[in-house]
Amino acid sequence: MTPAEKTPRTERGRKTLRLLLDAAAAEFGEKGFHESSVVSITQRAGVALGSFYTYFDSKDSLFRALVRDMSAQVRQTVGPVIAAEPDRLEGERKGLNKFLNFVREHKELYRIIDEAEFVDPPSYRAHYENTVNGYLASLKEAATKGQVRDDVEEVHAWAIVGMNVFLGLRFGVLDEDRDAAEVATIAADLLTNGLKR
Amino acid sequence: MTPAEKTPRTERGRKTLRLLLDAAAAEFGEKGFHESSVVSITQRAGVALGSFYTYFDSKDSLFRALVRDMSAQVRQTVGPVIAAEPDRLEGERKGLNKFLNFVREHKELYRIIDEAEFVDPPSYRAHYENTVNGYLASLKEAATKGQVRDDVEEVHAWAIVGMNVFLGLRFGVLDEDRDAAEVATIAADLLTNGLKR
Repeated sequence: MTPAEKTPRTERGRKTLRLLLDAAAAEFGEKGFHESSVVSITQRAGVALGSFYTYFDSKDSLFRALVRDMSAQVRQTVGPVIAAEPDRLEGERKGLNKFLNFVREHKELYRIIDEAEFVDPPSYRAHYENTVNGYLASLKEAATKGQVRDDVEEVHAWAIVGMNVFLGLRFGVLDEDRDAAEVATIAADLLTNGLKR
Repeated sequence: MTPAEKTPRTERGRKTLRLLLDAAAAEFGEKGFHESSVVSITQRAGVALGSFYTYFDSKDSLFRALVRDMSAQVRQTVGPVIAAEPDRLEGERKGLNKFLNFVREHKELYRIIDEAEFVDPPSYRAHYENTVNGYLASLKEAATKGQVRDDVEEVHAWAIVGMNVFLGLRFGVLDEDRDAAEVATIAADLLTNGLKR
């Protein structure tokens, strides 16, 4: 599914759409949904107002598209890092490290996804369900390869996604006082060996 | 710290304050902060408008007090269940089960805490920092007793709180299709033994 309401057919159209989504991320992240405006977003993007309405009906439809786009960006950034690693537990470590660095470079991510709970609840729910479903599918695949316990199920996937989201909040958004790779190593060790002595 | 701006000195005052906080939880949880009103909250509470202003200056100060109150309620509900258990990992299971049942009975909890990110960011941050700091202190105590690994630190505390928050969202707020005790058992086993085969 493409992030916009209308799919651009040309390279130039795809570039315009990307400019609009990036400007929307900056504007919504900085001002929040209610204080943001289509005019200001098009000015940030350097795109004519008429071009905006080629792709979106309204500020609401742009926001929905942005949540889908950011959600997909996270999966496309982290997913391949996990998938490239033959050892899933090592993949968890590398994937979390990648996610923490992504969050540090896109601090607006949390505010936008979190505001979706109020601005567009179905987008909020879809973001987490898609993220968890992707995680669960890859955990099950790792289980069939003997890389993780063979009883992995939905509870594990929600638990791990929650863990990663909170580590991203603390060590990506709120403060960068810890080394991302070290945080990822500690968390991956918790996932591998558990809390027991 | 008491949840209100002004501390009631009488039993009757404490009862009035509790009625106001419970009515505020219902109103903010149902309508959100911006659509909620002090008049409507006092009507729900069956409390005179003048009594409201004995305890709070404004809708904002009530909201701040409510976030502190709900945050404390969660810790006071779950903390003793964990503390009562001599085996910390069994305590994690019982604590999560208690939390899931608390969320099912207080579904407004998530919406109110999450809205604090936008309505009063310091309250939002304080809620998570207090929750994690409490968790970390109790994990370190368990470590000194030899109940969990002795290198427990902030990363573990944020990871476990994030896990529990997301399990509460999925299995408490969004849907109750799974048995809470079963969810808690699976999550506690993940925490105890990790993901490895």
